[in-house]
Amino acid sequence: MTRQERAARTRCELVHAAAVLFEQQGFAQTTLNGICREVGVSSGALHFHFENKAAIANAIEEKASSTLRHTVSRQRPRRAGALQELIDTSHVLVAQLRDDLIVRSGVRLSHDIARQGGPAFRQEWQARVRALLEEAKEDGSLAPGVSVAEVAATVTLATVGLMALGRSDTEWLSGSSVTGFWRLVLPQLAGADFADRLDPCGAAA
Amino acid sequence: MTRQERAARTRCELVHAAAVLFEQQGFAQTTLNGICREVGVSSGALHFHFENKAAIANAIEEKASSTLRHTVSRQRPRRAGALQELIDTSHVLVAQLRDDLIVRSGVRLSHDIARQGGPAFRQEWQARVRALLEEAKEDGSLAPGVSVAEVAATVTLATVGLMALGRSDTEWLSGSSVTGFWRLVLPQLAGADFADRLDPCGAAA
Repeated sequence: MTRQERAARTRCELVHAAAVLFEQQGFAQTTLNGICREVGVSSGALHFHFENKAAIANAIEEKASSTLRHTVSRQRPRRAGALQELIDTSHVLVAQLRDDLIVRSGVRLSHDIARQGGPAFRQEWQARVRALLEEAKEDGSLAPGVSVAEVAATVTLATVGLMALGRSDTEWLSGSSVTGFWRLVLPQLAGADFADRLDPCGAAA
Repeated sequence: MTRQERAARTRCELVHAAAVLFEQQGFAQTTLNGICREVGVSSGALHFHFENKAAIANAIEEKASSTLRHTVSRQRPRRAGALQELIDTSHVLVAQLRDDLIVRSGVRLSHDIARQGGPAFRQEWQARVRALLEEAKEDGSLAPGVSVAEVAATVTLATVGLMALGRSDTEWLSGSSVTGFWRLVLPQLAGADFADRLDPCGAAA
């Protein structure tokens, strides 16, 4: 392994160790010494990569953001209009929160008031929910009489609730609660031509 | 004013000042000196009432919990079965989060990972949602084919989402998002004899 490869591996290990500690203890309680101890490196080695604790947190948040942004903005095959794409995207999001440590830690950090960061991803997600619902109105997967603003708000409430509940109890991230939500609201939302084709379980599974 | 009255007033002022600072900065960043400065008392006066920062936070959380517990467990006039009572209770909850500083700060604290406290109220609320839905099944306000567990999960997602979103943007606590949620799900939930009587706006307003 070259020196460069070793450095990249150490950086990666530091980010992962920090993600675990931030998730367990929050930003304020986590120390640089604690992170070094987990990885088994000196504080000099840590400072070679990161100036301070905030710099590591930023690295985690940026990586989580870019993963989520990619998930959310990705065009999926339109099985049954934009409404199905919204359902599928919500399932992928929840699966990522469940399975990807960096995503989970990044979302946690962006809600940690001690960090004074903003819930930036949340706003992007809200914008995407709204955009997909507008498209669904166009393509007919969303029924004509339905208020996009009202549905967007309800989808946002449910998904943000899931992120909040999933932080203390990962049972919520199993996917069945997303399915249950969609099953409950779909009959009100589905356009006539799409009612039989929309699948509350999503395509992620 | 007697010495006892003065002491009670100071205690109340300390709790309120701490609630403001915890809400703005989180638990970890708030200092006892900052709290004293807000109220204009010495640290000796503060220590007469509270041993440390955690003791003030506990006092806020206990007061918030007892207010919310009272709200949630209160029997309301059954205008249209237990399902309407659940709708009304959700509206009162949101109004309290919006209007009551101690409740807002207490809920915030119970989610602050730096405090290592548990989201105790959340569990009580989940239990109450479930109990009211079971009753609604009995009295016919909830339609027979509906899964109590699935509806309970969705109501929990939406209300916890509201608490989370309301922490950074109080617009969410206006009550209209609760109404929108109920409007969307009620057609799936309402028992035949209750469909016309159930009111998504709740009785709180």
